[in-house]
Amino acid sequence: MPLIHQLRKEQPLVHCITNIVVANFQANGLLAIGASPVMADAIEEAKDIAKVADCSILNIGTLKQQTVDAMILSGNSARAAGKPVVLDPVGAGATPFRKACVLQILDEVDVTLLRCNVGELAAIADIPWNAKGVDAGEGQADVEGIAKIVALKYACLVAVSGEIDIVTDGHSTLSITGGHPMMTNITGTGCLLSSVVGAFLSIGSERPLEAAAAALAFYKRAGEEAAKVSHGPGDFAMNFLNALYTLDRKTKTYLV
Amino acid sequence: MPLIHQLRKEQPLVHCITNIVVANFQANGLLAIGASPVMADAIEEAKDIAKVADCSILNIGTLKQQTVDAMILSGNSARAAGKPVVLDPVGAGATPFRKACVLQILDEVDVTLLRCNVGELAAIADIPWNAKGVDAGEGQADVEGIAKIVALKYACLVAVSGEIDIVTDGHSTLSITGGHPMMTNITGTGCLLSSVVGAFLSIGSERPLEAAAAALAFYKRAGEEAAKVSHGPGDFAMNFLNALYTLDRKTKTYLV
Amino acid sequence: MPLIHQLRKEQPLVHCITNIVVANFQANGLLAIGASPVMADAIEEAKDIAKVADCSILNIGTLKQQTVDAMILSGNSARAAGKPVVLDPVGAGATPFRKACVLQILDEVDVTLLRCNVGELAAIADIPWNAKGVDAGEGQADVEGIAKIVALKYACLVAVSGEIDIVTDGHSTLSITGGHPMMTNITGTGCLLSSVVGAFLSIGSERPLEAAAAALAFYKRAGEEAAKVSHGPGDFAMNFLNALYTLDRKTKTYLV
Repeated sequence: MPLIHQLRKEQPLVHCITNIVVANFQANGLLAIGASPVMADAIEEAKDIAKVADCSILNIGTLKQQTVDAMILSGNSARAAGKPVVLDPVGAGATPFRKACVLQILDEVDVTLLRCNVGELAAIADIPWNAKGVDAGEGQADVEGIAKIVALKYACLVAVSGEIDIVTDGHSTLSITGGHPMMTNITGTGCLLSSVVGAFLSIGSERPLEAAAAALAFYKRAGEEAAKVSHGPGDFAMNFLNALYTLDRKTKTYLV
Repeated sequence: MPLIHQLRKEQPLVHCITNIVVANFQANGLLAIGASPVMADAIEEAKDIAKVADCSILNIGTLKQQTVDAMILSGNSARAAGKPVVLDPVGAGATPFRKACVLQILDEVDVTLLRCNVGELAAIADIPWNAKGVDAGEGQADVEGIAKIVALKYACLVAVSGEIDIVTDGHSTLSITGGHPMMTNITGTGCLLSSVVGAFLSIGSERPLEAAAAALAFYKRAGEEAAKVSHGPGDFAMNFLNALYTLDRKTKTYLV
Repeated sequence: MPLIHQLRKEQPLVHCITNIVVANFQANGLLAIGASPVMADAIEEAKDIAKVADCSILNIGTLKQQTVDAMILSGNSARAAGKPVVLDPVGAGATPFRKACVLQILDEVDVTLLRCNVGELAAIADIPWNAKGVDAGEGQADVEGIAKIVALKYACLVAVSGEIDIVTDGHSTLSITGGHPMMTNITGTGCLLSSVVGAFLSIGSERPLEAAAAALAFYKRAGEEAAKVSHGPGDFAMNFLNALYTLDRKTKTYLV
């Protein structure tokens, strides 16, 4: 069975510690693919949620110090329970604070997969790069080479989003083409993608590299579908959620 | 005059202490029905807002300890001013922290109405239940019986959402059918509903049980209207806001 | 070259410290006009972001005391780097806490432009006014006269939104007509406008009064365009983002 069908059947519980900008879009996107989102970032409860959830997503978009502590507790709680943990190092190169938090999380949590853009990857790998806020920015780099080094250093999968996505375990690398430039014209597509990858990992834990690639490919196809019927970023966001819901469904009717 | 007409005329000020996931949807939904939302959760000001608002909504979706304190101050401030207070115990059964916070609020604030799903009700009533994150989950229970017990214990109305909604004061119970399954496929429909019930309560304070039932029925009808013209969860959310705005309006034209 | 064309070419980095209700809409609106948003409110990093951003937006919508501190650090960091700072005093008259925070920011930061509604202006100028939560409310006042006094007192531009927008430097005043009443029926149009004004100021820094007026006029036109094709507040919000993206673009096709 394709992973997306299995995901819709099992409806994995996806725990997100995320930012105030994309929390709504991320929850709606997870619901659209068929997962069950739970957003809980309080230090008093994050690790309890992580323990029972099927995967945990750590997103540093609007980070506070106390959230870093909750992330580390959650990440370790999820891993202790054998669940995958995805780290989204939003804007890792934007400030020293962000970079330090990302490196601390990578040091203290056995992260399963790092999902980033090339600017964030460069920051983590200490490669010079012109990042721009939380966007990828510009520079020249051997993306696959750097991703492999980071993957080996932290013993995790590394997925780098861009015109062509790649995902690597440090040895093998899969490339995924497709998608649409408009995916970068709305906020939160990267953040939601990290959650979607987490949901796929929770279903396809036996072959995580392939599960991550399947998530990236599914996501790019949803972007293509949405772009076909959109007139601007406003309806693109809406059509993208629709596409995440309808793509590869046997029945396309919305009346269940 | 139907309550919705009176509500649109009086435009009650609805104070919400809510979570980062649904704050935008909740504010837009309140504007759509004709209410005036004000989201203020800082402990320095929440009770001042609650005092002048027409009702206060306490939602524990992404709770922190300091927010619990703000909720208790606000709730008591609203009640001292004779305004209704609605508690939405989001995911009350998901963690010990959430359950403890909910019970603390119910103990320290004279809550007017508790709006929950069956999983949250079970947690509050200490009934075994397979909740799943913040979703209702699965189990067998005499929902009406438990709702009545909780209503009597805390001397409040209890509204339980589901395929059939019920609302009870512990003695009488009203049932509301309708709605659409897609209402559970977007995030925040429960949270927004709690605010809508609060807005109706502020208008129909003489007969609160009936006012709450009117809110629940109005909301289910909006869901049905939205589903008729939607192709997925993306446009359902949009059409749902439209339906909250247009339902039972004399003029359907958007140009005012 | 019209400012909007220059803005789309230069894609200014707009730093926002904002509230949980509108963060998503604000980020998407900034992306739609062609700017690059970065939302960062942690005290550990806000001033670092402000230093490299092209402008900073301080929005007190869901304020905490620690956020005020971050705002003051950020505002001073931005001004030291020669970048404009826009203050949005959301609901300044709603509580003593909000008003005190606004006055503190105005005292400690060399704000470039204050973007408010008439109720918020009245609060800042200590004029009696019936504000209603975060909405403009009702009253009688010489708006232009008060705006000029505030502009001179704080040596900043003051833009007041309403059926007719005005912007003044205390000496000259520009008025902008147009827009659509539905712009007040969704949450966040004022907050997003403040960010859009900031983006225009960062491009048109030589003539800030005119740049602000250009932003206000562009925004009102987008509202008109959106209203033409909308059926309610749900699709108005979507169409408004589309209009911010497509307005004054040479090519209207969405496939880039």
